[in-house]
Amino acid sequence: MQTSNSIGLHSFQAVNPATGALLDGSFICAASADVESAMQAAVAAFESYRRVGKDKKALFLRTIAQEIESDGNAITERASAESGLPLTRLRNELGRTTTQLRLFADLVEEGSWVQPVTHTGPPDIRKMLVPLGPVVVFGASNFPLAFSVAGGDTASALAAGCPVIVKAHPAHPGTGALVAAAIQSAIEKCGMPAGVFSILFDDGHTVGAALMKHPATKAVAFTGSLKGGLALQKLAAERAVPIPVFAEMGSINPVLLLPAALEKRAVEIATQLAGSITLGGGQFCTKPGLILALRTPALQTFTTTLANSIRETASVPMLTAGIHQHYHQLSTQMTSADGVTLLAESAPASGTDHFPTRARLTQVSARDFLSNPHLQEEVFGPYAMVVVAEDLRELQLAAAALAGQLTVTVMGEPDELPAHEHLIQQLADLAGRIVFNGVPTGVEVCAAMQHGGPFPASTDSRFTSVGQGAVARFVRPQAWQNWPDELLPDELKSSNPLNIIRITDLTCARK
Amino acid sequence: MQTSNSIGLHSFQAVNPATGALLDGSFICAASADVESAMQAAVAAFESYRRVGKDKKALFLRTIAQEIESDGNAITERASAESGLPLTRLRNELGRTTTQLRLFADLVEEGSWVQPVTHTGPPDIRKMLVPLGPVVVFGASNFPLAFSVAGGDTASALAAGCPVIVKAHPAHPGTGALVAAAIQSAIEKCGMPAGVFSILFDDGHTVGAALMKHPATKAVAFTGSLKGGLALQKLAAERAVPIPVFAEMGSINPVLLLPAALEKRAVEIATQLAGSITLGGGQFCTKPGLILALRTPALQTFTTTLANSIRETASVPMLTAGIHQHYHQLSTQMTSADGVTLLAESAPASGTDHFPTRARLTQVSARDFLSNPHLQEEVFGPYAMVVVAEDLRELQLAAAALAGQLTVTVMGEPDELPAHEHLIQQLADLAGRIVFNGVPTGVEVCAAMQHGGPFPASTDSRFTSVGQGAVARFVRPQAWQNWPDELLPDELKSSNPLNIIRITDLTCARK
Repeated sequence: MQTSNSIGLHSFQAVNPATGALLDGSFICAASADVESAMQAAVAAFESYRRVGKDKKALFLRTIAQEIESDGNAITERASAESGLPLTRLRNELGRTTTQLRLFADLVEEGSWVQPVTHTGPPDIRKMLVPLGPVVVFGASNFPLAFSVAGGDTASALAAGCPVIVKAHPAHPGTGALVAAAIQSAIEKCGMPAGVFSILFDDGHTVGAALMKHPATKAVAFTGSLKGGLALQKLAAERAVPIPVFAEMGSINPVLLLPAALEKRAVEIATQLAGSITLGGGQFCTKPGLILALRTPALQTFTTTLANSIRETASVPMLTAGIHQHYHQLSTQMTSADGVTLLAESAPASGTDHFPTRARLTQVSARDFLSNPHLQEEVFGPYAMVVVAEDLRELQLAAAALAGQLTVTVMGEPDELPAHEHLIQQLADLAGRIVFNGVPTGVEVCAAMQHGGPFPASTDSRFTSVGQGAVARFVRPQAWQNWPDELLPDELKSSNPLNIIRITDLTCARK
Repeated sequence: MQTSNSIGLHSFQAVNPATGALLDGSFICAASADVESAMQAAVAAFESYRRVGKDKKALFLRTIAQEIESDGNAITERASAESGLPLTRLRNELGRTTTQLRLFADLVEEGSWVQPVTHTGPPDIRKMLVPLGPVVVFGASNFPLAFSVAGGDTASALAAGCPVIVKAHPAHPGTGALVAAAIQSAIEKCGMPAGVFSILFDDGHTVGAALMKHPATKAVAFTGSLKGGLALQKLAAERAVPIPVFAEMGSINPVLLLPAALEKRAVEIATQLAGSITLGGGQFCTKPGLILALRTPALQTFTTTLANSIRETASVPMLTAGIHQHYHQLSTQMTSADGVTLLAESAPASGTDHFPTRARLTQVSARDFLSNPHLQEEVFGPYAMVVVAEDLRELQLAAAALAGQLTVTVMGEPDELPAHEHLIQQLADLAGRIVFNGVPTGVEVCAAMQHGGPFPASTDSRFTSVGQGAVARFVRPQAWQNWPDELLPDELKSSNPLNIIRITDLTCARK
């Protein structure tokens, strides 16, 4: 992006990362008055939006999906220009985005997600989940659609009954504005309160910080770097009233290669992993960045094959100048660290790419890996490191030194797993999701998904940012005791007018 | 308690709060080596305890309940001597404690609480809740049994599959030691790993701080003061890897008196509230400490009746010297604040009580209440303040000024509720539980209970510390992708060998 100042207003333009060209459209950074009015509007909207019936809310989410689809070509073209990502990928991502919205619409329409629990006393006690209030969503650099303005965070917060204020990612403001217009149109068509959604632009950190500090903000969702997530968590902790920050901060997603699997299919595994490491320029939070294996002859076959694939990786433009610079700096630092060998590097871009990737593969002994905690840092981009252990004990020591992860992958033959049970349990304890003979990239949107792992992969391993479970981030349980039936929410009325699944507890004790 | 030092060991004795007499038994404060060995034992125990089958774990919880009952007389007598609470109350509390253990045993035995969700892909993804690891529990001063060594926190953590390290409350170490012996006996009888439970004593803050800082600690449960809870939260935030702190820090539990209800039954409501304010010397986190009402003639009848009841309250010894001193200091400060009138005060104790309560009732105008945030502080003991508003607007302003609460109570006639809908929603938004025409004390142990409210009532309003839901504090979701069926936990195996309720999601999208 490029910034300018005129008549007291600060504005910026998007940059095409593939060409370096400035794109049309100037985006004005929100002033503190804009933040205040978005928050006030959200507070006002919450009063009515929380009372919107489930069918109307589901229709609203579906209408957002429709409006996005109606403007789909313009959205994906702008997103491609702003991100350098190919149109095919963005069309898939748009599909994921609208599917997510419809999935949450289905959840809302069915209605049991509020987990009603009734206790027919005395005292009569009934509990269900209620929305927290205005939610601030930070758009992600690497998913201009599915983790941005109308992405999973926004969809799940709206499903929960919370108004959303999006701080658009500065790398794709035009995409954000188009998607915001689609949401705006759905608000009008469905007669929703205007303040249920706002978008604010900023190419710096002022607006984000103001949103974090605002007393009306009740929760925050973020997908991005460790540094960014920790900064938000710090701001949240400094508030008079702390709020939950759901920051998904990425990880290095260790892959354990077990010896029998390597012996049997070293080439196949190497090819599979090469695809996952370089997919989308390696710019996924689930990119496998660390490969753990015992020194065996088959490992040599594996690394040779993987090195060849990495070497032949076609260059793609990286998402932003910052990501490009950071990738090259960090991957170069890694390569020159004690004991680290560069196994392969892809060729420089042939000319057109403005922020070209160079995929890199390195190798280090488990002993050197253990002596340098910096080698565990996430290198966001097409980079991976092979850690070679001399024996199982070294593998266990390496596993014990690892921090929390989004995913851990085990490549193994079923019959060699029991012998490695302890090591696999060590790795599983680090991660939100454990994958067997697959790749961690490609996060399925479904109710069984867990996207979020022990710190520092995310700020709170007890919640997921992908799948229906994501709605749980924006609600809290509330109990009504001896409340008049006609004044209870429909979800809790004795006649169960919504016909939803409820739990009636039979085993109770009196204090 | 009274402390002494001998041969380098620091030890202390319990004090009978009713008489001031030192009680038998000397309790040695844990040294850092003791903390370390308890944590190491917990880590070792976790490896096997997490794999204990549900029926065996349920039997373990039931055996703890039995062992506590076997020693019930000694436990309640010691608890009465250490707390000054009457034996009848402690026998009830013991019943609550064992009922809680059995309730979690039932939950574990049934098995569906791990919320298995399966997605039959490809990819095949299966999710369930898994235990976090060692949990530190801080005993509470006001519930020597139900919120202490084998209380709800310990029971729910053990149910979750987490080893527990209890920091015993220094006011009732002897009770703690007896209950710990019962747990120890259950561990032996059931063949559980020794480190699944440890108890540590300390009359200061060193042991608690060491437990908070220990890298193996995965979560913390605490019931106590705002100051204590915030100190723990601060220690947790300073860790390299933050951990969840579930601190229930009490509240003033506002009671809204609506005019028609007051007009109809001022005396009845006053009598009901007097009982709740002075129950157990007012030493409950759900004691109603703030009464909000419009100035009406009926309010005069209410306050006169309540004042008479408060004046006639029999003195009971308070739990500890610290609570006694703090209560008298804070209630005296409140009484002398600008605009505050002392309406009633009970007589001083007749002689035998060592830390006697003097129940107090004050009154303040809504205007003066609004100008002094200190009047919102919790006064732990038999104290309440009536806030008199001139009109509905003043009531709304007072409600808007209130912080988060465990409970909010509305005394009203059903037909006057719609006219006060906005005010009631304002109050409901503050609280975890909202009570109609009842009292907030008496927290039912059931699946529909929510005990925990918005900050500062608790550190995390999304969790409850009472009822089956309390188990959710000590688990996180984990997903298995394409994992070999025979290596999945039984809860997720395709044949569903445990025959538990599972969700199979049918609406999924592929990233």
